[in-house]
Parts: sequence; structure tokens; C-alpha cells
Amino acid sequence: MPYVNIKVTREGTAPGAFSTTPEQKAALIKGVSDLLFEVLGKPRNTTFVIIDEVELDSWGLGGLPVLEYRELVSRAAPKDE
Amino acid sequence: MPYVNIKVTREGTAPGAFSTTPEQKAALIKGVSDLLFEVLGKPRNTTFVIIDEVELDSWGLGGLPVLEYRELVSRAAPKDE
Amino acid sequence: MPYVNIKVTREGTAPGAFSTTPEQKAALIKGVSDLLFEVLGKPRNTTFVIIDEVELDSWGLGGLPVLEYRELVSRAAPKDE
Amino acid sequence: MPYVNIKVTREGTAPGAFSTTPEQKAALIKGVSDLLFEVLGKPRNTTFVIIDEVELDSWGLGGLPVLEYRELVSRAAPKDE
Amino acid sequence: MPYVNIKVTREGTAPGAFSTTPEQKAALIKGVSDLLFEVLGKPRNTTFVIIDEVELDSWGLGGLPVLEYRELVSRAAPKDE
Amino acid sequence: MPYVNIKVTREGTAPGAFSTTPEQKAALIKGVSDLLFEVLGKPRNTTFVIIDEVELDSWGLGGLPVLEYRELVSRAAPKDE
Repeated sequence: MPYVNIKVTREGTAPGAFSTTPEQKAALIKGVSDLLFEVLGKPRNTTFVIIDEVELDSWGLGGLPVLEYRELVSRAAPKDE
Repeated sequence: MPYVNIKVTREGTAPGAFSTTPEQKAALIKGVSDLLFEVLGKPRNTTFVIIDEVELDSWGLGGLPVLEYRELVSRAAPKDE
Repeated sequence: MPYVNIKVTREGTAPGAFSTTPEQKAALIKGVSDLLFEVLGKPRNTTFVIIDEVELDSWGLGGLPVLEYRELVSRAAPKDE
Repeated sequence: MPYVNIKVTREGTAPGAFSTTPEQKAALIKGVSDLLFEVLGKPRNTTFVIIDEVELDSWGLGGLPVLEYRELVSRAAPKDE
Repeated sequence: MPYVNIKVTREGTAPGAFSTTPEQKAALIKGVSDLLFEVLGKPRNTTFVIIDEVELDSWGLGGLPVLEYRELVSRAAPKDE
Repeated sequence: MPYVNIKVTREGTAPGAFSTTPEQKAALIKGVSDLLFEVLGKPRNTTFVIIDEVELDSWGLGGLPVLEYRELVSRAAPKDE
């Protein structure tokens, strides 16, 4: 009976999406449940998977809100000659 | 000073409701706080109760999003003669 | 299928106990499961209850580790004449 | 690589705001990341900070939803002569 | 930059083990990180995976501590003729 | 009444320590409580801070248990001429 909580930023990673799509959530639920069955033998029908989407300005990394952090990192990335 | 987090799917269980009603939340808050006082003697005024409602497509059980899982289970349930 | 997480400080509240006893944990599990059935109609056999005990020096209130906070509060409490 | 989760009630504490402002969130992210660097030497670029805002009727204290608790406390507070 | 928290009961599922083995934890970490890369394109080097093992008497299902629940279920299971 | 949960790996960052010291925990509790007062005006005496220490083999980054990840990164780091 595992409990798995997945937190991701609320943004689209599929074409035209602004957040995680139902299909992507279903794939995450299936993948995690299969993984826990394969690795620990945990039955899928007592495995909870909960996905939380967090607003971009509510997620910090590098001491900055994530969008600012990504900008900082991309500016610092070496430019191709 | 207990901290209690209750996660439930965002759906109505009261007539006409589409999510947990304020009255139901108040009943959960009272019930949990009373329980912690009765069992562990924890004073109610330092007991936090936080209720999270999770979208149905963000909650997985049986390797499936919960609505699909419920459908699967109801189809598999023995029909009454 | 609710998920309930209860966090309490690791200390005894029953005579002679140094942490939450198995009987107290069982009472919390039963009480919470019954509450979610009574208030939201959630079946007990898909209600997860997880109890975490936190070391006293890892729990802060009032900007202090909890034992120091309790001392501060008890010193500040009016003495009976 | 610390993970810090901050939960606060969804309400404005800045003039005219109805929830935590982006600037306040940025200040919390910076402050927590700096703190973990200063106290534990944890590099900021592997410190996650996630801020959750919880609806007022989903947060309980004193066995009551928080707004009712605040009202109770303010009514009980000694009035200035 | 996903954050994934996996909670399982502290018990062995590998021969001779009394809890989740380091190898099993490594397999869970790899599997979840790969899954988030494949489904959402999330880079592995900003994916946190945290595994919590919960004492058996601190995990409840069916209103009972998990070991009692398992016993109840196994007693109720139809015996093979 | 904020709730703050800080998760860090269980390792020493102070000389001779094998985990976070009580003094470091107290500094984190004070720092976070002060921050929430300064940024959001939240009173310290209703701010919960809970610190969790996670075993090194239970924390994953880059698809690896953290010690392996650190080794990988340090091997890949450019050597000083």
C-alpha cells in the first residue's frame, strides 16, 4: 500500500498544453504503480498516487522563483560560436 | 501540537455539491481535533488541520486515474441475479 | 480513498510511555477512518492513515524548539496566589 | 539539496492583496534558501522551496475553521478600558 | 524539477530483508526519474525523489493498523477446496 | 499560522556531527519563523516548523541515490590545472 506524491510545476510540456494533461497524469499513475509492483511487489490496487501541480511563482530554486532561475541559468549558459 | 493533513478527491459527497462543503470541512476539523484531544490529550488550540482537495484525474489507484478505476471495479462486481 | 497524515511530537502521553503507544495509534487510525466514513461516506478499506512521530528538537513553535517554547510559556503563565 | 514546503492560508497580507503576492513568495524563497546556506551550507541551486496556499475554510485550529477560531479568540480577548 | 515522495511500510520484500534494501531504493529512484523524463521531459538532475519508510503500527487501512487489516482480509478470503 | 516542513539529508554539516545538530535545528526554526513574521506578518506563536532528516540512500537526485550522484558530479567536474 504505497503512497506516492508527485509535485511538478503547473506548466505544459505537451504541445498546446498549459498544464500536465490527463493523459500525462494517467501515464505517471500507471508508471509509478507498475514500478512499485516490479521493485517491491506492491499490489496496484492498494497503491495511491497523488499529483500536485504547483504555480510557477510558488516554486523556488537557486533562491529565486523558478522562471527567474531558468532565465539566470540560460543567460549564463555558454553561447555556441 | 499535532499537524493533520487530510487529502480527499475533489468531488461532492453531499447532495448537489461538487466538492467538500464548508460544513463537511468544519466537521472534519472538529472531529480530528477532538480525537487528538481524547486519545493523546493534545490541546485543540495548538492542533493544525489542513484539508487538501485533489482533482479526480490527479489521484491514481490500481494504476489508473480514480474514475477509470471505479469503472473497472464496478464492471467486475458480480451482478445481482 | 482519503489519505490522512498525522504528525505529532515523539513523546509519551500515556503513563510510562516515551512515544505514542501502539494502542493510541490504533485508536487514532480507527477514529480518523470512522470520521471520514461518517462525514464524507468514504469506505474505510480505501482510507490510508499514516502517523509520523517527530523528534522534539525537530519541531518548532514560537520560533523555538518546542521544549524551550513550553518552558517560556510556563514561566510566563500567571502563578496562582 | 533541501526541500522546504511552506503552507499558509490563502489570504492577503499586503495592502489590496487577496493572497500571497509574487513579491512575497520571492522573498520567502530567497529567505529560506539563504537560511539553509547560512546554517547548513546547502547550495541554493539544489534547494527546492514550494509554497502552498490553503483555502481559509480548509485550515482548522482550535477545532474550528480558522476564521471562526479567530473570531472566537478576538471576542475572548480582554477589551481595553 | 519534480519532487516525488514515496511512502511505504517499513518491511522487507526481498529475501532476508526487514526493510526496503538500498538496491530497491536505487531502483525506485531510477525508475521514477526515468518516468518523469519520459512522460514530462523533466531532466533527471533536477528531480528529487524521497523515500519514507513508515513503521507498520503507524500505517492504517480499513480502520486498523495494517498488520491487523491484513489478518482480517486473509481470514475473510475464500479457502481453496 | 504557517506550517513549514524542511527535509534535509541525514548527514553532519558541523564539525564532528553525523546529522543536523540541535543548535542548527534551533537556528532553522528561528530563521524560518522570523522570515514568515517579516514577510507575511505571521505571529511566531502560531508558526509550526518541522524538520525531517532523510537517510542518504533514501534521497535521490539525477536518477541516483545522492551519494552516487555526488560522486558522478565530482568525477565530471573539471580538474584544476
